[in-house]
Amino acid sequence: MRIPTIAPTANPTLAAALDDAINNKTKPLGSLGTLETLAKRLGLIQQTTAVAIDRPAIVVFAADHGVVAEGISAYPQDVTWQMVENFLADGAAINVFARQSGCALHVVDAGVHHDFGARDGLVDRKIAHGTRNFAVEPAMSAEQCAAALEHGAAIVAALPGNVVGFGEMGIGNTTAAAALMHKLTGVPVAACVGAGTGLSPEGVLHKQRVIEAAVERHEGVDEPLAVLATFGGFEIAMMVGAMLKAAELRKVLLIDGFIVTSALLVAARVAPAVLDYCVFAHCSDEAGHRRMLGQLGAAPLLQLGLRLGEGTGAALALPLLHAAANFLAQMATFASASVSEKSADA
Amino acid sequence: MRIPTIAPTANPTLAAALDDAINNKTKPLGSLGTLETLAKRLGLIQQTTAVAIDRPAIVVFAADHGVVAEGISAYPQDVTWQMVENFLADGAAINVFARQSGCALHVVDAGVHHDFGARDGLVDRKIAHGTRNFAVEPAMSAEQCAAALEHGAAIVAALPGNVVGFGEMGIGNTTAAAALMHKLTGVPVAACVGAGTGLSPEGVLHKQRVIEAAVERHEGVDEPLAVLATFGGFEIAMMVGAMLKAAELRKVLLIDGFIVTSALLVAARVAPAVLDYCVFAHCSDEAGHRRMLGQLGAAPLLQLGLRLGEGTGAALALPLLHAAANFLAQMATFASASVSEKSADA
Repeated sequence: MRIPTIAPTANPTLAAALDDAINNKTKPLGSLGTLETLAKRLGLIQQTTAVAIDRPAIVVFAADHGVVAEGISAYPQDVTWQMVENFLADGAAINVFARQSGCALHVVDAGVHHDFGARDGLVDRKIAHGTRNFAVEPAMSAEQCAAALEHGAAIVAALPGNVVGFGEMGIGNTTAAAALMHKLTGVPVAACVGAGTGLSPEGVLHKQRVIEAAVERHEGVDEPLAVLATFGGFEIAMMVGAMLKAAELRKVLLIDGFIVTSALLVAARVAPAVLDYCVFAHCSDEAGHRRMLGQLGAAPLLQLGLRLGEGTGAALALPLLHAAANFLAQMATFASASVSEKSADA
Repeated sequence: MRIPTIAPTANPTLAAALDDAINNKTKPLGSLGTLETLAKRLGLIQQTTAVAIDRPAIVVFAADHGVVAEGISAYPQDVTWQMVENFLADGAAINVFARQSGCALHVVDAGVHHDFGARDGLVDRKIAHGTRNFAVEPAMSAEQCAAALEHGAAIVAALPGNVVGFGEMGIGNTTAAAALMHKLTGVPVAACVGAGTGLSPEGVLHKQRVIEAAVERHEGVDEPLAVLATFGGFEIAMMVGAMLKAAELRKVLLIDGFIVTSALLVAARVAPAVLDYCVFAHCSDEAGHRRMLGQLGAAPLLQLGLRLGEGTGAALALPLLHAAANFLAQMATFASASVSEKSADA
């Protein structure tokens, strides 16, 4: 795929105008903390002091992973398609939280090992019935990877709003994400792996060994998109394409947990300016996520010990985006409300 | 005032039923983190597994503090009444966030140093035109304190819903709250004081010295309600009465920042079971708040570096209460959605 041209958001004049607008609101200087940082970021992304959240959407990309053959997940592979059915039936956590946050929800079959047939509400972009097992061969071909990137870009291009939240479902995908993290950051595999959906400590160690052996097998694969094709999943690759396109279109990227952030690691290696468009929803309880966020210099909005995926953290953080936009748009200024400013000698 | 009878919420049978309901939802065990803890707490407060958030309200109590004569605030005292006007004109941060969260907002004049006259939207429970200066004499009389407690209780008793968020406005009230914290917890004054609305380091040191001198002057005042009368504010005393009544009525108490939590310190000394009814909205950036929360064993939902007061943290946390109630009420179970459970050998 053509790598989108992503413009950095830096704009000193606009940044100063945003600071002024924020600081003139009737509140002590800086007293809205992270929400002030967030409002400024939204303004820089949208290139205006008139920040607005317009028709936010969460897109959940689902796919299966050949590496489950190595016994690296606490749940059977069938749970991927069963959870997709649960999304379509409105029964999963992301359905509840997206609805509560007034957020559209799109479910994409990026490569689930199951035949759904034509289904209302399911976006069929299936690349294959799951990736191959990266413990023995590359997870996907370069052509499959390119197709996934293109589909992701097209899905985002068709969204009407200006905020895209990313979510995923795929039994085995914390293993793929941990491998990507190791390859793209150099952090030791042991610090990248976690319990996923609930492995025992022995299970986590086995997962670590599987990744370490695979990294050795695929030695020399270092270019970001080659790493993605070798270790990634179709849902992860589709998110990479979606993220790059969303940033090109100057949308806000609302980044969820460990797997979504692993896709962003790839995207940021391809086009570093994508990071200017990101809002980090939360720090997951999955072991490697904090360090992954640290690698990206990211300050997540929420720390709720979530480790569910699906975009649930993104949906839960959305009210904070609204709050940032709303205080900037709706609060009175010291002048408009005739409130005294801080004493000069304080 | 009569101290309300507050029933502890502990109920092993109900707790087990809540655990079952939470664990059968289609998600890995424990993967909703803090939201699961919150859902369980809401269930224990409401004595049901059918948790519901009904007509939440935020009550902002405003009052002035005689101790401002000591030069302990970055803003002039007039800002208290000016911000009350801002609340009534819908221009403050709490107006924006309460509206966004679909939450009723009530503004109470507990003792502002200003004559508002009869005003639509302002609940007039003025005890006096501000407290006296606790650096030289007790802030209020025992009778004034009792009246404030009674008013707070009556205000909460008249609310229709089952969640009460607490907010406050009062130039100088971080000084009162820091004094209460020191007296009720024994934490050194230096670790209780912070910059409030924006003091310089020298200003914070002066504030510390004022409190230390006042504590010495009022030596021997140790009974919680006497401490409240000596160092507190009318808005703080009214919140104490409101909190005790809210817990008696089995409402959820949504606790905001440093000043609101100082009122809870008093309430918890009078009736420890009040803590069973509390949800801690956020950890404020005001220096002493983290330690104050620690003293109460509280785990706040948000860490956003807020230090604005007004109940803004409570309003911002309200969507998480809805999320906790909604996942419990609306998510499918493994059985209802025919999703496979965790492998036995994982």
